[in-house]
Amino acid sequence: MTEIAIPEGSPFGLANLPYGVFSTPGAEPRVGVRVADSVVDLAVALGDDTFARPSLNAFMAQGRARWAEVRRRITELVSGDVPDAAVHPLASVTLHLPFEVADYVDFYASEHHASNLGRLFRPDAEPLMPNWKHLPVGYHGRAGTLVVSGTEIVRPNGQRKAPADAAPTFGPSARLDIEAEVGFVVGTGSPLGASVGTGDFAERVFGAVLVNDWSARDIQAWEYVPLGPNLGKSFATSVSAWVVPLLALEAARVPTPTQDPEPLPYLRESSPWGLDLDLAVEWNGQRVSRPPYREMYWSPAQMLAHLTVNGAASRTGDLYASGTVSGPEKDQRGAFIELTWGGKEPITVNGEERTFLQDGDEVVITATAPAADGSRLGFGEVRGRILPARAAE
Amino acid sequence: MTEIAIPEGSPFGLANLPYGVFSTPGAEPRVGVRVADSVVDLAVALGDDTFARPSLNAFMAQGRARWAEVRRRITELVSGDVPDAAVHPLASVTLHLPFEVADYVDFYASEHHASNLGRLFRPDAEPLMPNWKHLPVGYHGRAGTLVVSGTEIVRPNGQRKAPADAAPTFGPSARLDIEAEVGFVVGTGSPLGASVGTGDFAERVFGAVLVNDWSARDIQAWEYVPLGPNLGKSFATSVSAWVVPLLALEAARVPTPTQDPEPLPYLRESSPWGLDLDLAVEWNGQRVSRPPYREMYWSPAQMLAHLTVNGAASRTGDLYASGTVSGPEKDQRGAFIELTWGGKEPITVNGEERTFLQDGDEVVITATAPAADGSRLGFGEVRGRILPARAAE
Repeated sequence: MTEIAIPEGSPFGLANLPYGVFSTPGAEPRVGVRVADSVVDLAVALGDDTFARPSLNAFMAQGRARWAEVRRRITELVSGDVPDAAVHPLASVTLHLPFEVADYVDFYASEHHASNLGRLFRPDAEPLMPNWKHLPVGYHGRAGTLVVSGTEIVRPNGQRKAPADAAPTFGPSARLDIEAEVGFVVGTGSPLGASVGTGDFAERVFGAVLVNDWSARDIQAWEYVPLGPNLGKSFATSVSAWVVPLLALEAARVPTPTQDPEPLPYLRESSPWGLDLDLAVEWNGQRVSRPPYREMYWSPAQMLAHLTVNGAASRTGDLYASGTVSGPEKDQRGAFIELTWGGKEPITVNGEERTFLQDGDEVVITATAPAADGSRLGFGEVRGRILPARAAE
Repeated sequence: MTEIAIPEGSPFGLANLPYGVFSTPGAEPRVGVRVADSVVDLAVALGDDTFARPSLNAFMAQGRARWAEVRRRITELVSGDVPDAAVHPLASVTLHLPFEVADYVDFYASEHHASNLGRLFRPDAEPLMPNWKHLPVGYHGRAGTLVVSGTEIVRPNGQRKAPADAAPTFGPSARLDIEAEVGFVVGTGSPLGASVGTGDFAERVFGAVLVNDWSARDIQAWEYVPLGPNLGKSFATSVSAWVVPLLALEAARVPTPTQDPEPLPYLRESSPWGLDLDLAVEWNGQRVSRPPYREMYWSPAQMLAHLTVNGAASRTGDLYASGTVSGPEKDQRGAFIELTWGGKEPITVNGEERTFLQDGDEVVITATAPAADGSRLGFGEVRGRILPARAAE
């Protein structure tokens, strides 16, 4: 038996207990929970086959009462001795995408980000579209290109056309960017024809992850009218390996910023699901931004209510992301196109000038949040390094 | 043993042989092939467990050589006597969604449709965006809300705002429309980082279906800037129950219309995959349109090449649809917003005036194409009836 040592102030202590999927040499991927710098194999520790699977989906589909029960059991277990066979050092395991992604939706819920992008993409128009304060604007992304943190990101090829060019050219994106986001994972879905009210958020959503929505701004700018982003986003989207349970985020709840005009009734919340998460973005090891999630205009409960208000089905494994988290200050912007104002104001990273990502650059996004025991819990990082584009055929 | 009678000129003769998923009372859904008005149970007829499953995905993943071999075996089998236990009258079976949908993408590949919608949605601007003739514009839709033909369609609720309104209101869509489309189903996927050349289309794509991309135009018009359509589409998208194999469509191949300017090299085709399909749209039993697929500007091979040129992965079960099929003539338009010019020019359907869909209305889309034996093969219909909206909460 092993007692897992949890250092004072660990971001992965008993108030967190995030879930992931891991493997050890010669064994199949299975569900684990992170405790400090260890991974506890839940199929072994709890003797429950739900966790002897390569994704969280089966467990997530079982619903909130079961999520709460398992969390209690894990807390009891980890507070005492855990069977040796169930404990692996984090450094010895491989982490996998923690859930099978059903549909992937990306919102655009930061007023600061939407305003900045509006100014950059449409300099001659009002930065916020007329609909923006009436509904959480979002679009569907490509579920099949979600990858786990650590996956290397190949610079995409595509069509780019600067305003002065007569015609588009084909080649590697020259304006490769990040978007630091928070994603929400649906545990229990809702059938076609049903809508999920804002009050049902915690019944439906299992947990949260960090997302890096890599974005090729030159490809995006050329393609996105009138049907929205596509190839400028679909080459890869990275998610953290650990899903922080919504049950661990109660202490992080805060009101959303004042919503004016008042949203339509289906978007109102009796107890808002704003979240006081502090994100941090590191570019080649240097912290370049600290996006504050508490500034997000629309809450994740409002996002899910909007997504389903037309009767769209939701499914176990649906992931919806917040859109770039940007605060009002320059050093709170969650995308490099904002930090460098469209590439016109380079920043210095480890003594080198940067506007967009260069080959070999690495970005790591992390986050912390207030936990129930007064500590701060951590989200697993979402990390990615840029590889050179493939030769165009 | 049963000899399946195939009437002279049947659209479901030996030159077609589309695949679907069916069930009979008390038995699980499984794969069948349609021959005239019969369904042949392939697990029973071929003694192959690949077909004893509730979707085509396992078979589709096996690749083109296997698709061709199974097609030869079915042709031989059906040309002689088939075991009684393998043959079911079409009228006695329930048809299901024939494949598990991975990612769903909707293109916008008809120049006539894109121009018409541009005029209607943006009357003060050029109808075609500058990118339209350089790339097949498309966006991701909601895979989880694809339904099989025959599923009733509940009128969606949502936010609508007419230009003269001060603020949006919530309620049932008053401008519920159809889009008659053709969809292509990926059989063998491609990994992250790889791109699929136009010449690999027939290696990758298993077959084609008809799609009705139900569209709430009032919801769409309010929400779609700047990230594209979302709730105006995601309430339901219907697909036909039968997947016509690409192997059956060789005789339907035609050149695409002249593409000027010449596309970038990755979009060029040595032997274009235009398709000479004749669609027909019936509104409450009256034919209101005959959209010609041969007029589509971009071919499905170009669509797949574009989708993956940035290294996006494709998967077995990916569905990508053409966008509304509209020809140059008024009675060739595949959406009611075009047929009735934004509702300003009602048409008469069975003696009643119509602009958009009313509760109880039914739409059926069918299609035929030249077959290898000189006959015309049929696509299974895609049918849907409108139910009243649910009471808004």
